Amino acid sequence: MSLRFLGNSLILNNVYIQDTGICAGLLEHQGPLSRYFDKYYEDYYCHQDSFEKAERTMVKDALSICLNKAKLKEDDIDLFIGGDLMNQNTIMHYLARDLIKPFIGIYSACSSFCLSVALSSMFIEAGFFDNVMSLVSSHNLTAERQFRYPVEYGGQKRVTTTFTATGGVATLVSSQTSKIKVESITLGKVIDYKQNDANDMGRAMAPAAYDTITQHFKDLNRTYKDYDLIVTGDLSMYGHEILDAMLKKDDPFINNYHDCGCMLYDLSKQPVFQGGSGCACSAMVSMGFIYNQMLKGTYKKVLIVATGALLSPLILAQKETIPCVAHAIVLEVV
Amino acid sequence: MSLRFLGNSLILNNVYIQDTGICAGLLEHQGPLSRYFDKYYEDYYCHQDSFEKAERTMVKDALSICLNKAKLKEDDIDLFIGGDLMNQNTIMHYLARDLIKPFIGIYSACSSFCLSVALSSMFIEAGFFDNVMSLVSSHNLTAERQFRYPVEYGGQKRVTTTFTATGGVATLVSSQTSKIKVESITLGKVIDYKQNDANDMGRAMAPAAYDTITQHFKDLNRTYKDYDLIVTGDLSMYGHEILDAMLKKDDPFINNYHDCGCMLYDLSKQPVFQGGSGCACSAMVSMGFIYNQMLKGTYKKVLIVATGALLSPLILAQKETIPCVAHAIVLEVV
Repeated sequence: MSLRFLGNSLILNNVYIQDTGICAGLLEHQGPLSRYFDKYYEDYYCHQDSFEKAERTMVKDALSICLNKAKLKEDDIDLFIGGDLMNQNTIMHYLARDLIKPFIGIYSACSSFCLSVALSSMFIEAGFFDNVMSLVSSHNLTAERQFRYPVEYGGQKRVTTTFTATGGVATLVSSQTSKIKVESITLGKVIDYKQNDANDMGRAMAPAAYDTITQHFKDLNRTYKDYDLIVTGDLSMYGHEILDAMLKKDDPFINNYHDCGCMLYDLSKQPVFQGGSGCACSAMVSMGFIYNQMLKGTYKKVLIVATGALLSPLILAQKETIPCVAHAIVLEVV
Repeated sequence: MSLRFLGNSLILNNVYIQDTGICAGLLEHQGPLSRYFDKYYEDYYCHQDSFEKAERTMVKDALSICLNKAKLKEDDIDLFIGGDLMNQNTIMHYLARDLIKPFIGIYSACSSFCLSVALSSMFIEAGFFDNVMSLVSSHNLTAERQFRYPVEYGGQKRVTTTFTATGGVATLVSSQTSKIKVESITLGKVIDYKQNDANDMGRAMAPAAYDTITQHFKDLNRTYKDYDLIVTGDLSMYGHEILDAMLKKDDPFINNYHDCGCMLYDLSKQPVFQGGSGCACSAMVSMGFIYNQMLKGTYKKVLIVATGALLSPLILAQKETIPCVAHAIVLEVV
């Protein structure tokens, strides 16, 4: 069994999802997937005095929940990999100072979930470690004030806007056999389609998702038929529509593509504009809803493509466009 | 030959530094290590109209130089890994949109150089890829305005300040035999010694460097005598003094520990306060001076410990302290 990448993709033979911990904000708890989350908080503060500490609390709680489910202690984890949306990966690094094992910080915007699980899987497959903990988080109010304006300003939103999900997700990737394996991964290229509207990220990210999905199919000689479900991270309604059209151009019969950003909330009732986004969005839907459906046998094999808009407010002010990326993982029932 | 981590360290058997490309700012060019850099620029703009574009240009040039030296095309590179100091890894991501291969963005502040080479090495050792390109950069004026104040304000500097180096470094890590191998790596833990002065990062980072060095010695059953040289990334004069004292407490005879931040500039003449810092600092000294000395045979085996202060201006304003990390690589003449 080869450890060689085929193009940008790698087939894995010994990597499993051992357990998960998922903490949700109130709006996410009020959404249709509530039953798949382990914990929720009554407000955006999570009993802390700043939104950043609140976000850190969610990840910390998710980590504890995951370790408890797996009946492991922190010392049993060989390595932590984490990503969030805040400058300097600050949520993760201020959490990591309480950890006693090495930490690798990644930044891949909202695609961090798949990138961190992909890296964890590569390390396990190589035999470097037995247990790698992937951590991701996002928080609507920390992200809003960093990338746009504090919500207290009451600025009007554009119709194309997506809504950063509030949540923290811990995913324990392990060499120990479980019911769900990470079957393969595809690392994404950075794609810039010259979109410069920071309030329309779904459409900006669709070409990156398309690139990763078609690369994945090509590398592993597969089609949409190999999957019970294909989901993107957070393209939202507009981005989903575009990508669906792009995929249908290649194969008009594709009928199993959905978007986590459209699944996390009830878009007809909840005030989330085009749908959810943020590192936590694809993580909560994948490790909550999809993972549980796979355990029940509803889905056997799912392609998850987390998407990230790598925009910098500073560089947008310098009149440049938005580079995007999408990293993919495949989960399969053993 | 095992692919297993020993504690937080991994011994590598098949990983080589194939080539490097190093671009320097003017002050770095005027320093004592000038002859080891491939290119320099007359000013902070590098023929661009913003400092961020200037920094991107330096990395782009470093990449071209490295590929030229290695007689490779971009298509021969399997994966790019990059880190810089700017929010959203923006230098790297805006460069990566011009690349045709997958990109992984890491954030580990000034320790990004060793983390990116360490990750590249792990991927090569596992057999995933043949050629992984590690990219790092920093720019004094992009970093100053993001983390402190624009230099145009003319704010007075504290004596404990370090000076962010201006440079871009490309390091080609490869499975193909060369004269210098990456012999081992040690991944660092995040350590917070409750220092909260963003103008005294050398002292904040010293405990993290100490932790990684002692962990490295313990994991691989080594002492300072196994190395011709041990360097930290950018502890600067104050931090170097503290770490030297900490190491001497364990072994009073240690006499081969230096700091890249003190080596990059002529501290007696150049206006860099306690010495250099930034992702480019340890990268320029290691891949410039040290790498060349190793090729000449001056050093046989060197332990490089890049240090990073994971501070967030936002979180410091919330009265928290500075978590730090240090990742290590060992270069050895084959």
